[in-house]
Amino acid sequence: MFYHIKELQYHAKPERPDPLFAKQLQEVLGGQFGEISVALQYLFQGWSVRGNGKYKDLLMDTGTEELAHIEMLATMIARLLEGAPVGDLEIAAKDPIIGAILGGMNPQHAIVSGLGAMPADSVGNRWTADYIIASGNLLADFRANLNAESQGRLQAVRLYEATTDRGVKDMLAWLIARDTMHQNQWIAAIKELEAKENVVVPSTFPRELEKREVSHVLFNFSRGNESATGRWANGPSMDGEGQFQYVEHPQPLAPKPVLKPAPPYIHDTLPSVLKNDAIPPSLY
Amino acid sequence: MFYHIKELQYHAKPERPDPLFAKQLQEVLGGQFGEISVALQYLFQGWSVRGNGKYKDLLMDTGTEELAHIEMLATMIARLLEGAPVGDLEIAAKDPIIGAILGGMNPQHAIVSGLGAMPADSVGNRWTADYIIASGNLLADFRANLNAESQGRLQAVRLYEATTDRGVKDMLAWLIARDTMHQNQWIAAIKELEAKENVVVPSTFPRELEKREVSHVLFNFSRGNESATGRWANGPSMDGEGQFQYVEHPQPLAPKPVLKPAPPYIHDTLPSVLKNDAIPPSLY
Amino acid sequence: MFYHIKELQYHAKPERPDPLFAKQLQEVLGGQFGEISVALQYLFQGWSVRGNGKYKDLLMDTGTEELAHIEMLATMIARLLEGAPVGDLEIAAKDPIIGAILGGMNPQHAIVSGLGAMPADSVGNRWTADYIIASGNLLADFRANLNAESQGRLQAVRLYEATTDRGVKDMLAWLIARDTMHQNQWIAAIKELEAKENVVVPSTFPRELEKREVSHVLFNFSRGNESATGRWANGPSMDGEGQFQYVEHPQPLAPKPVLKPAPPYIHDTLPSVLKNDAIPPSLY
Amino acid sequence: MFYHIKELQYHAKPERPDPLFAKQLQEVLGGQFGEISVALQYLFQGWSVRGNGKYKDLLMDTGTEELAHIEMLATMIARLLEGAPVGDLEIAAKDPIIGAILGGMNPQHAIVSGLGAMPADSVGNRWTADYIIASGNLLADFRANLNAESQGRLQAVRLYEATTDRGVKDMLAWLIARDTMHQNQWIAAIKELEAKENVVVPSTFPRELEKREVSHVLFNFSRGNESATGRWANGPSMDGEGQFQYVEHPQPLAPKPVLKPAPPYIHDTLPSVLKNDAIPPSLY
Amino acid sequence: MFYHIKELQYHAKPERPDPLFAKQLQEVLGGQFGEISVALQYLFQGWSVRGNGKYKDLLMDTGTEELAHIEMLATMIARLLEGAPVGDLEIAAKDPIIGAILGGMNPQHAIVSGLGAMPADSVGNRWTADYIIASGNLLADFRANLNAESQGRLQAVRLYEATTDRGVKDMLAWLIARDTMHQNQWIAAIKELEAKENVVVPSTFPRELEKREVSHVLFNFSRGNESATGRWANGPSMDGEGQFQYVEHPQPLAPKPVLKPAPPYIHDTLPSVLKNDAIPPSLY
Amino acid sequence: MFYHIKELQYHAKPERPDPLFAKQLQEVLGGQFGEISVALQYLFQGWSVRGNGKYKDLLMDTGTEELAHIEMLATMIARLLEGAPVGDLEIAAKDPIIGAILGGMNPQHAIVSGLGAMPADSVGNRWTADYIIASGNLLADFRANLNAESQGRLQAVRLYEATTDRGVKDMLAWLIARDTMHQNQWIAAIKELEAKENVVVPSTFPRELEKREVSHVLFNFSRGNESATGRWANGPSMDGEGQFQYVEHPQPLAPKPVLKPAPPYIHDTLPSVLKNDAIPPSLY
Repeated sequence: MFYHIKELQYHAKPERPDPLFAKQLQEVLGGQFGEISVALQYLFQGWSVRGNGKYKDLLMDTGTEELAHIEMLATMIARLLEGAPVGDLEIAAKDPIIGAILGGMNPQHAIVSGLGAMPADSVGNRWTADYIIASGNLLADFRANLNAESQGRLQAVRLYEATTDRGVKDMLAWLIARDTMHQNQWIAAIKELEAKENVVVPSTFPRELEKREVSHVLFNFSRGNESATGRWANGPSMDGEGQFQYVEHPQPLAPKPVLKPAPPYIHDTLPSVLKNDAIPPSLY
Repeated sequence: MFYHIKELQYHAKPERPDPLFAKQLQEVLGGQFGEISVALQYLFQGWSVRGNGKYKDLLMDTGTEELAHIEMLATMIARLLEGAPVGDLEIAAKDPIIGAILGGMNPQHAIVSGLGAMPADSVGNRWTADYIIASGNLLADFRANLNAESQGRLQAVRLYEATTDRGVKDMLAWLIARDTMHQNQWIAAIKELEAKENVVVPSTFPRELEKREVSHVLFNFSRGNESATGRWANGPSMDGEGQFQYVEHPQPLAPKPVLKPAPPYIHDTLPSVLKNDAIPPSLY
Repeated sequence: MFYHIKELQYHAKPERPDPLFAKQLQEVLGGQFGEISVALQYLFQGWSVRGNGKYKDLLMDTGTEELAHIEMLATMIARLLEGAPVGDLEIAAKDPIIGAILGGMNPQHAIVSGLGAMPADSVGNRWTADYIIASGNLLADFRANLNAESQGRLQAVRLYEATTDRGVKDMLAWLIARDTMHQNQWIAAIKELEAKENVVVPSTFPRELEKREVSHVLFNFSRGNESATGRWANGPSMDGEGQFQYVEHPQPLAPKPVLKPAPPYIHDTLPSVLKNDAIPPSLY
Repeated sequence: MFYHIKELQYHAKPERPDPLFAKQLQEVLGGQFGEISVALQYLFQGWSVRGNGKYKDLLMDTGTEELAHIEMLATMIARLLEGAPVGDLEIAAKDPIIGAILGGMNPQHAIVSGLGAMPADSVGNRWTADYIIASGNLLADFRANLNAESQGRLQAVRLYEATTDRGVKDMLAWLIARDTMHQNQWIAAIKELEAKENVVVPSTFPRELEKREVSHVLFNFSRGNESATGRWANGPSMDGEGQFQYVEHPQPLAPKPVLKPAPPYIHDTLPSVLKNDAIPPSLY
Repeated sequence: MFYHIKELQYHAKPERPDPLFAKQLQEVLGGQFGEISVALQYLFQGWSVRGNGKYKDLLMDTGTEELAHIEMLATMIARLLEGAPVGDLEIAAKDPIIGAILGGMNPQHAIVSGLGAMPADSVGNRWTADYIIASGNLLADFRANLNAESQGRLQAVRLYEATTDRGVKDMLAWLIARDTMHQNQWIAAIKELEAKENVVVPSTFPRELEKREVSHVLFNFSRGNESATGRWANGPSMDGEGQFQYVEHPQPLAPKPVLKPAPPYIHDTLPSVLKNDAIPPSLY
Repeated sequence: MFYHIKELQYHAKPERPDPLFAKQLQEVLGGQFGEISVALQYLFQGWSVRGNGKYKDLLMDTGTEELAHIEMLATMIARLLEGAPVGDLEIAAKDPIIGAILGGMNPQHAIVSGLGAMPADSVGNRWTADYIIASGNLLADFRANLNAESQGRLQAVRLYEATTDRGVKDMLAWLIARDTMHQNQWIAAIKELEAKENVVVPSTFPRELEKREVSHVLFNFSRGNESATGRWANGPSMDGEGQFQYVEHPQPLAPKPVLKPAPPYIHDTLPSVLKNDAIPPSLY
C-alpha cells in the first residue's frame, strides 16, 4: 500500500519556460530508460520476490523513490510548457525563436495534454511495458537494473549538457546523483549474489547438461582478428569453469536443413512447383 | 557486408513435431531477449562504435553469430510444426492430445505463416526494436548485453526443462553453452572498461556537478529496515568516491508544487472552476 | 513523494493455484482498463492540474490507492501461478487437467516472468500508455475516469463469475466495491463541474464560432429510423442551447474534391497516367 | 453494407498550403481521439449490440457519419500538403519560413505518403485499435463515447486556435458543432440507460456480493484533506445505495504477503540465496 | 460521405457456436491482412489520388465493399461466441470439450468485448495502421493491394480447411470468391499502369542517375549457385533496360568505415578507452 | 550461418554532417519499407521454404545483401550526425541554421543513441515485425517482395530529391539501382510461378468450392461509374476462368442480422433495457 506526500522529493522549477526542452526531457520521464520504466521495473521485481528480506525491501525502496522522480519530471515539464506559443507559422516566422519553437515542440503537448507532461518519450512514442524486465531471478534482474541506471544516467547527463537553465540543471544534477547511487547499489547487490551463486545466470542449471566444449569459446565470424586480443579470448573464464579459447575459422556443425513439405490443407507452395526445372522459353 | 553459409551452425532437428512447444520456443527467437534482439542489438552497437578495434570486432563477431542462432531456431520451429493438426474442435476433442494441440498452439502458425517460424514471441507479440539498446557508450551497452544474455540463458533453461524431446534438448544445450560464453565475455569486457574508466556510467561527467550529498545514500521509502543490512548501505561505495549511508526517514526537500494557469487558447479547466468553493445544495 | 507500506490494502490469497485464471486475471492488472491504467491516468491528471485544491487531491488520493491495487493483483497472480506444471504435452495429455493447463496458460508466466505477474493483459499484450488520458481539462478527464471505472468494474464482475475460488472471489468483491465508489465519486465530480461550466467540453469555446445549425442535429446515415425515437432526437438539447432535430436524408454539402497534382520531386503517379483513356487492346 | 457518395459532407479546403499544420491536424484524424477512433468504436459497438433497436441504429448512424469526417480530414490534409517544399537545409535556412517548414513538418508526409494524409497522429504514431472500446455493455460504452467526444472537441478547439486559415477554421467549426451534438446525444442516451438501470455499471451484479462497507468510502491516501470537501465525500451516494464517507487514515487490512518458493525447474533465485545473511567481508 | 444499409452483403451465420474458431477467424477481421486492413488501405489510397477518374473510383468501390466484409465477420464472430462457456477449470475438465474451449478461446472475448468481435488478430494483437500502405504512387500501391488480396485469400482458405461448420464455410466461400475478383482486378490495373509507365516504380526517376552497372545484377551472397538458374539471372531484364547478370563472388566496393569520435557533450566511450591496449594483469 | 566482411558493399560517406537529413534517412533504414524490413522478410521467407532449390537460394542471397544495406545506412547516418549541435534554443536562434537543426533533428539521436543510427523510422517509431510477411506460399510472398521494393525505391528516390550532398546522392543512386534489380527479379520470379500455377493465390484451392458467381464481378459501391471503364470490368478475367462483369447497383444478399442475447454471466446490457420503449417524461 502506498501513501502520497504532496511535497516534492527535490526541486523541479525551471528559470523560464522552454517547450523545446520539455519535449526532450520527456525521454527521461517516458522513454525506454525513463523514470516510469525504472519505477515499474523495480516494483514488479519486488512483488515477484518469493520470500522476504533485504532484496525485496531494496526493490520496494527504490521503486517507490522512482515514483517521486516521475512526479518531479512531470512537474518540471508542465512548468517548461507554461506559456507555450500557439499560432500561425507565417506570422511566427517573423520571430525566429517562436518559429523554431512552433516547429520543434511536441504538438501533443498543446493539442493532447493541454501543457501537461505525457507518458511518452522525446519523439512522442507512448511508454510501453515492453521496456521492463522482471524474471524472478534476481541476479539476472539486478543486471537489468544496473543497465537501466547506466543508460538513464547517460541520458540525464546528455540533457544536462543541452540546457543553460539553472533550474533544470539543478534538478538534473540531483537525478544524476541518485543514478550514481543506484548504479552503486545494484553493483553491490550483484556482487553479493555472484558471491553466493556464480556469475553465470542461472547458476542452478547443471553445467554437465550444456555443451561445455563451446562454453568458453569466442568464434570469429567477422573478418579480422582484433577481438582476439581481449580478456574474453585469453586466460581463465570469468566463471572459473574453464579457459577462454579463440576459434579463427568457425565451421558449421550441421548439414544444410531441408524441411518436409507442408500438408495440403496449408496451401504452401507445392513441392512440384518448388523444383528447379528449366525456365520455359515463353518467359523470355 | 555479409555472406551466408547454407549449413547450420549446430543441429536443429527435433525427434518429432510438437506445435505447442513450437509456440513456446518462439520466445527465444522473437521475444524481448530472443535471438533477433541480441543479433540486432550487437550489430547496431557495432556499427555505432566511433573508432575501430577489439570492442567493435567483438560486437560484430557476436552479432553475426546470433544471426546463425535465429536461423537455427527458425529451422527448429518449422520442423516442430510439421504435421500440425487442423480441424474441427468437436472431432478433435475425441482425442485429448489433438484437442489440446488445437487449443494451445499459436493459430498464426497455421493461418499466417503456413507452418513457418514467426518474428514473434511465445504469446504472439511481434518483435519490436523497443527491445534493443545502443547508446554509443560501451560500458553502458555491455551491461545491457550481459543482462540480455542472462535473461536469454534463463529462458533457454526454462524451455529445456519443459520438453523431453532429445533433439530440442540437444539444440538448447548448445545455445545455453553459447549463452554461458556470452555472459563470460561481456563480464570480461565490462571489467576491462571499468578498469579504464570508473564503474559509474558515464565516467566523463564531472562529479562536482552532481549533488554529491545524495550520491551514496539509500533512502528508505518502504516501511521496515531489511534493506539496511545489505552491502549497498554499508562501507565504501563501489565507485570509491564515498561511503554508503542509510536514511531511515527521508523527507521531501521541495515545497508542494503549484502550476500556473494555462493560457486561454489551451482550454484547460479555468482557475475559477478549480477553486474549492462550497458544494451547491442542488447537487445533493 | 511516496511511501510504501508492506502490508496489503486487502487480502490477495487464492484457495489454490490456478495458472489459467492467473492468465485471465492479468486483464484487470495490465489490460486497457486494468489497475496500471487507472493508477497512471489519475496520477498524470493530478500532476497536470494547474492550481491546487480538492480536484487535484482527489486525483492523487485515488491514483495512490490504485497503486495498492496493482500490488494486490500482482500478489494474487504470483500465488495463482505457484506450482504451475511444466512439461511434455504427450505425458501431460494423460491427465486432461494438466493438458488443458499447459495448453491454456500464458507461456510467458513460466518462461519470462518465472511465475510472477506481468505488466500485460489476458492475451499477453504488454501494457501501453496508449491506454491513458490526461488532457488538462478536468471535465473531459473525469468522463474518461468514469468510463475507466465502468469498464473496469464490468471486467472484474465477469472474472468474478468465472471462478469458484473463494479467495479470488473475496478479493474481487473488494475491488468491485472500490469500483462502485470510484464510479460514484467521478459522477459526483462531473456533476460539480457541469454545474459550474456546461455539459459540453470545453465550455470556454464561444458558441457563436461553431456552425450552430448542426450543433443539435441527428443525421440518419443508416437505413431505418429507429434512432429517431430516442431522447437525443426529441426535445431540448442537454446543453440547454437548442432543440434536438432529426434529419432523415442528410445530403453532402460540399462538391466532390479534386486534389492538385503533386510536384514532380514526389514521384506520385503522373496526371497523364491517371487520365481515363481507353484500354489498349494488348491488355485483353 | 455501405455505399459511398463522392461529395463531401462539408467543405475541406484551406486558403493555402501549410505542411506544419497538416502535421498537427493529423491528431484529430489518426490520434487517440481522432475520427478513425470514433468511427471504428461506434461501428464495433453497433455490430456487437445483441438485439436491435434505437441504440444500435444510433451507433450505426453516428459511426457512418464519422467515416465522412475521416474523408474530410484526409482531403484537408492532402490539400495542406500541396506544394510542400523539399530540399537542402543550408539553402532553405536562407528563408526562415522554408527552414522552419522543412524542420517541423512530418517527414513521412513527403517520403512515405507522397503528400497524402496518413492514419497517424500529430507526432507520427500510427493509429492502433488500442484506442477503441466496445464492451457489450451500452452504458459503459456510451460513457466511453461521451469521453471520446469531449476529448475530440477539446482537441479540435485547440487546433482552431492555432491557425488563421479561414478554410481550415471553417471546417473545424463544422466538426466542433458535430462534436457538440455528439456530446449531447451520448449524454441523452446515458440518461435513458441510467434511468432504466442504475448509475453503477454493470447494474446486474448483485450488490450483496460486493464488500459494501467500502462501496461509498473515500480513502485519503495523499497527505492533506482538500478532497474531503467535495460532493464525493458528503451526502448520499450517487447510486442511492448509501452515504459517502471519508476515511482520513486508511490502514492496510491484510498482512505483508510472503510468496512460496518457485519450483526448481523455474530457476528463480533460490530461497537459500534470498536469506538475509551477513555480508561477507570480501565484499568490502 | 457514406450511407449504411442494415442488411448484410452476404450471409454470416454459423451452424453452431464455436468460440475457438471465433478466435481464429479474428485473423481475417483484424489481422495484418484482415478486412480492416484492406478497407482502410483502399480508402486512404483513394482519398490521396491527385486527380479523378477510374483508379480513384475503383479504390473507393473496393474500399467501401471491404467495410461490408468487416461487418460480416464481426457478425459471424459474435454468433460463434454465443453461449461461450464460463467457469472453473477443475469442473470444466470433466468435459474435455469445455476444458479445451476454456483453455483455447480468447479470454478477451469474454472479459473485454462481452462476446463481441474485436479489432484484433487471432492471437489478440490489436489492429494497427502499421499494416497499411498508401504512397501516392498507384503502381506501387496496386502491388501492395495484390499482395494483400493474395495473403488474405490464402488465410481465408486455411480457415476454410479448419472448420466443418457449413455456415462458416458458406461465408468463407463467398469471401474467397471476392478475393479471387480482387486479385484479378489489381492484376488488371497493374497491367494498365505498367503499359503506360514501366515495370519499375517509380518510372519517373531518370535512369541515368542510378548506378546502372548494378541495375540488373544478381549478387550471390549465399554459398551455392542454385539461384543462377532462374529467369532473374538469365536473358533480358523485365524492364527492357538491360540483360540479367549473375556475379558469383561479389566483393565489397568501399573500405572498412571508421567513424569520427563523438563530441565530448555526448559522453560516448572516449577514443582513449577504445584503443586496443594490452589487458592489465589485474584482470586475470 | 553467416560471416561478416568489414568492408562496406558500397560507399556511405556524406560530404558533410546533416542531422536533419539523418533523421529523414532513418525511413529507409528502420521504416515500414526500410532495409531491416526487407532483410528480415527475405530471410524468414527463405528459412520457411519447404524444400530446397533456386527460390530458397534467391531469398537467402537477397536477404543477405540487405544486411549489407542496413550496415551502409547505419554508417551513413552515424556520419551525418557527426558534430550535431547541442545547446540552448535562445542562443541557437541567433543562427537560424543551428536553430532549425536543434528544432528539427530527432532528439533521440543525441539523447539515446549518442549520434548512432537507430532501428526506427523518420519520425522515431521503432521498427516492428508487424511490417514483414512470410506465408509459406511463395507466389504470395514474392508479391509482397515486389511491393516492398516498389515502395522502397520510391522512398529512396524521394530522399535523393531532398538533398544536394553528393556523397548521400551517390549512395542512394546505388541503392536505387539495387532496388531496380530487385523489382526486376521478383517480377521474373512471379512470372515463373504464375506460369507453373495460376495468377490467383493460392492456386491449390478447388475453384468449385468458391462462390464462382461473384469471382469476376466488380461491385459499384461508390456513386459514379468511372470504374466501369477499366480493364478489370471488361473482357476475360486475368485468371482465364471467366469474364469480368460490372454490377452498378449491388444489393445486400442477407437479412439484417439480429444477435441473440448474451448469457447473464457476461453482464452485457439486458434485452429488457435494449427495447425501444418510450422516453420517460422525466428525461426532458
